[in-house]
Amino acid sequence: MKLYTFWRSIATFRVRMAMNMKGLKPEVEFVDLLKGHQLSSDYSKVNPQKLLPSLVLDDGGPPLFQSMAIMEYLEETHPQPPLLPKDARGRARVRGLSQICVSDAHPLSVPRIRNYLTKNLKLSEEQMLEWVRHWQKEALGTLETLLSGDKSTGRFCHGDQITIADICLVGQAVGSSFFQVDVSAYPTVARIVEATQKNEAIARAHPLKQEGAPAAVSH
Amino acid sequence: MKLYTFWRSIATFRVRMAMNMKGLKPEVEFVDLLKGHQLSSDYSKVNPQKLLPSLVLDDGGPPLFQSMAIMEYLEETHPQPPLLPKDARGRARVRGLSQICVSDAHPLSVPRIRNYLTKNLKLSEEQMLEWVRHWQKEALGTLETLLSGDKSTGRFCHGDQITIADICLVGQAVGSSFFQVDVSAYPTVARIVEATQKNEAIARAHPLKQEGAPAAVSH
Repeated sequence: MKLYTFWRSIATFRVRMAMNMKGLKPEVEFVDLLKGHQLSSDYSKVNPQKLLPSLVLDDGGPPLFQSMAIMEYLEETHPQPPLLPKDARGRARVRGLSQICVSDAHPLSVPRIRNYLTKNLKLSEEQMLEWVRHWQKEALGTLETLLSGDKSTGRFCHGDQITIADICLVGQAVGSSFFQVDVSAYPTVARIVEATQKNEAIARAHPLKQEGAPAAVSH
Repeated sequence: MKLYTFWRSIATFRVRMAMNMKGLKPEVEFVDLLKGHQLSSDYSKVNPQKLLPSLVLDDGGPPLFQSMAIMEYLEETHPQPPLLPKDARGRARVRGLSQICVSDAHPLSVPRIRNYLTKNLKLSEEQMLEWVRHWQKEALGTLETLLSGDKSTGRFCHGDQITIADICLVGQAVGSSFFQVDVSAYPTVARIVEATQKNEAIARAHPLKQEGAPAAVSH
């Protein structure tokens, strides 16, 4: 397998965590999002949406795209250790928590959105950052309410095993930290993120531990 | 089961299509998004994110949330007719196409975003509509490329059976039409949307056929 990746991409970070958890070691190819390399004609042939990640399988077929779809694929083809609960209701909860991060928070802070706000709409850098932080906080507040108010929450988002929800939550928290959003204001979220990041496979996937990453991110 | 619904909600439209396809007839409760009823304390107890849809099961547990998570739940608990292909690669493709609509296009045009653009950022109505149309067209262009360039595309997005990808594509197209985006510029998308909407269960779920809907939508 070959994973198209970049240190800063939160969606790719999710897939990297899932692959590490399952002991998979893909070949990697870097696509520098900050230099716009995702817009190159070479990469747009791999992924017409010009977004990361893309996962090329060894069967010669078209690349897989979209982090949630890729994680579900990995779960189906490499079931150990499981990253979804066994019961349908539990899986619905894990997928629902995941989608809050994947659909309702993260897409509002990606480079194409930040560029549109500052370049097309001529908003100031401060207005753009306020926008990003607003939607990050909205999602974190919802996640805190859902996690703190449900007895299915355990050491992790759903019980005491790491699931796709924890992967998405860690992605959310790391992404928020890049914009100086203080996750400690959301104590259940912060507790679960800390517990999840103690796992070596998760820790090793961190954006700032990847090739090309800076020591820290101001935004 | 009880589905919290509103004619205009595209995410709820997806769930309504899936439930109709599977012959499920939930009790329904209306939440008027245009009047802000989703922000009421009663509804925020059902769904702390204050978004539609929510699906209450008969087991007395917490409501399910997020349309993709709900559709996966319905697929697992009511497998006939199947709305996902049998093979893992096919499922990954269907889920990937779905997520382009669910994660990368739709969240950029929902009421909370439109309100933030016009109220918080003081953009004009025209700038807000331009924003919405820009991201709708981005997604439609990607979907056209992916659907027209892959031999797995058939009468529908993936082969000749309706899947969750077709449900999401119809939601995408109907949502785009509310903002006067011309889907006919994307011929493969338009062809599949038309074919899918010939299905009675899909047609019956259309936003403009629901209680409270107007005869047409200008945006």
